[in-house]
Amino acid sequence: MKVLIIGGAGMIGQKLAARLAGKGLPSGEISALVLHDIFKAKSPPGPVPVEAITGDIGDPAEADRLAALLPDIVFHLAAIVSGEAETDFDKGWNINARGSWRLLEALRKRHEESGGTYVPRFVFASSIAVFGAPFPDRIGDEFLCAPQTSYGAQKAMTELLVSDYSRKGMVDGISIRLPTICVRPGKPNLAASSFFSGIIREPLNGKEAILPVSQDVRHWHASPRSAAGFLTHAAAIDTARLGARRSLNMPGVSCTVAEQIEALREIAGNDVVKLIHSEPNEAIISIVSNWPRNFDPVRATELGFAAEASFHDIIKIYIEEDLSPAGGN
Amino acid sequence: MKVLIIGGAGMIGQKLAARLAGKGLPSGEISALVLHDIFKAKSPPGPVPVEAITGDIGDPAEADRLAALLPDIVFHLAAIVSGEAETDFDKGWNINARGSWRLLEALRKRHEESGGTYVPRFVFASSIAVFGAPFPDRIGDEFLCAPQTSYGAQKAMTELLVSDYSRKGMVDGISIRLPTICVRPGKPNLAASSFFSGIIREPLNGKEAILPVSQDVRHWHASPRSAAGFLTHAAAIDTARLGARRSLNMPGVSCTVAEQIEALREIAGNDVVKLIHSEPNEAIISIVSNWPRNFDPVRATELGFAAEASFHDIIKIYIEEDLSPAGGN
Repeated sequence: MKVLIIGGAGMIGQKLAARLAGKGLPSGEISALVLHDIFKAKSPPGPVPVEAITGDIGDPAEADRLAALLPDIVFHLAAIVSGEAETDFDKGWNINARGSWRLLEALRKRHEESGGTYVPRFVFASSIAVFGAPFPDRIGDEFLCAPQTSYGAQKAMTELLVSDYSRKGMVDGISIRLPTICVRPGKPNLAASSFFSGIIREPLNGKEAILPVSQDVRHWHASPRSAAGFLTHAAAIDTARLGARRSLNMPGVSCTVAEQIEALREIAGNDVVKLIHSEPNEAIISIVSNWPRNFDPVRATELGFAAEASFHDIIKIYIEEDLSPAGGN
Repeated sequence: MKVLIIGGAGMIGQKLAARLAGKGLPSGEISALVLHDIFKAKSPPGPVPVEAITGDIGDPAEADRLAALLPDIVFHLAAIVSGEAETDFDKGWNINARGSWRLLEALRKRHEESGGTYVPRFVFASSIAVFGAPFPDRIGDEFLCAPQTSYGAQKAMTELLVSDYSRKGMVDGISIRLPTICVRPGKPNLAASSFFSGIIREPLNGKEAILPVSQDVRHWHASPRSAAGFLTHAAAIDTARLGARRSLNMPGVSCTVAEQIEALREIAGNDVVKLIHSEPNEAIISIVSNWPRNFDPVRATELGFAAEASFHDIIKIYIEEDLSPAGGN
């Protein structure tokens, strides 16, 4: 099987690539792994031949180039992030929505050229940003998509396309709505959600971290390892089990910031927790108040998707996978 | 106020035009009414100056031409119907989705050229086709969109765009999900829903009608007069009352085919009902089994949208507005 990861240089793309290069896929042997991104992705070690190619899915010609590879499985992770899609309306819609559409169209063209025999699995990384307040205490599988960011609207729109192209048999698609991925390795960024990782990662690396919201903020998390697990499970699942609904809320851990901090204290001690400083930021407080707090992901759980059992586990995975022994990022 | 109806030659477009030309709008005086369609629309009588123009919103240049009119209110009713969107995938996506998107983009361009002062009201005729089975007994305002036709996916996608362009203040949009409109005047057509009108209209005109489904099929109806009423109400409403959710399930009448027939019997007598012949059609039975049966349209009702109280009223409106005294169609 030839596997293509679009967005292969990103944090989740790299976690997924490492997993595929190491463990492979339960549904068949990977003969080639292609990592596509705007920057050249690092190739993970392992027996699978990996090729890193560069290109911009905002470029109309790029989709045809990717479809010409005739991948059996496409992981579509590429996106302009939430904050940038909000400030650059055209760029967000062009890359996140039109780019995804062109990709489906290019795969459809190959499907038709093949006389209908080529039907790639298309795994789309959607997001809980498709939801918008007001929310029930736990968001169920039949709750409406009412995005309140352009990013969320672009994800919801791509889900509709994935679903309709799949219904027509042009691709075999599945959209998985990822929780906030925590603990993100690397440096803090300007995303409003950055602090959820920052308040764990920075103190574990001996650095101070700012908490811009109140400790009673509740949110929905899963580790980078779970994200890679969701994606590989989605690539291997029998999509007949999805019926007509090909978008799934992924499992996760719902916890408050206070519970995050308490878990950190239990794992790393009080001196580490003392590196977190509260500095309320009204802009971030306002954005975060519109974010989902908790889910009841019955369908995904029944279909075998699994996340961590607690925020403790999420911290331990960060320590195991991403914390360097020297304590640097 | 300049009002533009895109899809002005269609059945609902004509009902809306007649209403606007006669009663006007509660939110201000109409200085000009432009009816746009692929065929030249009939101009309704009344004091409002009406202009009928022709063009194809599948043509990329058409949206700019329409936006150049700088309408204060745009009613967007134009669409390839459900059946055709299902058989001609490209045409459906090009007209129903890309055509709507180009329209919003063209209006946004005028908005930006105006320095942000031009913010047209954009009333989008969506459909209960955005929903897909399985359904609860009554579909609530927070039920997911899971379309099972390309037409429904195109409507749901346009809703996302209307919502995001409105959130950004580029247009002031509202999407209203119309029930099946019944009793449609005119001739039977090939739509799977055609019989819901046919079993009333044909017998009232002394003609035989085929019932292709079982009498216990339940569905969601509103009259053409209600459709025009929903649209004018949506054009005049204070959209601040919608909050962040600009798509609304419209009210209607939920009844079974048996209840439709019983209402016809009470209004027109047994001899008229005898013109209905049962001829089960497996294809139609299968399609209709995936259609919504009943709604609980709390938000729309609170916002002042109103439909008929019973199917009796729906039949009486057809007799009053569309049944010619000679008994012909």
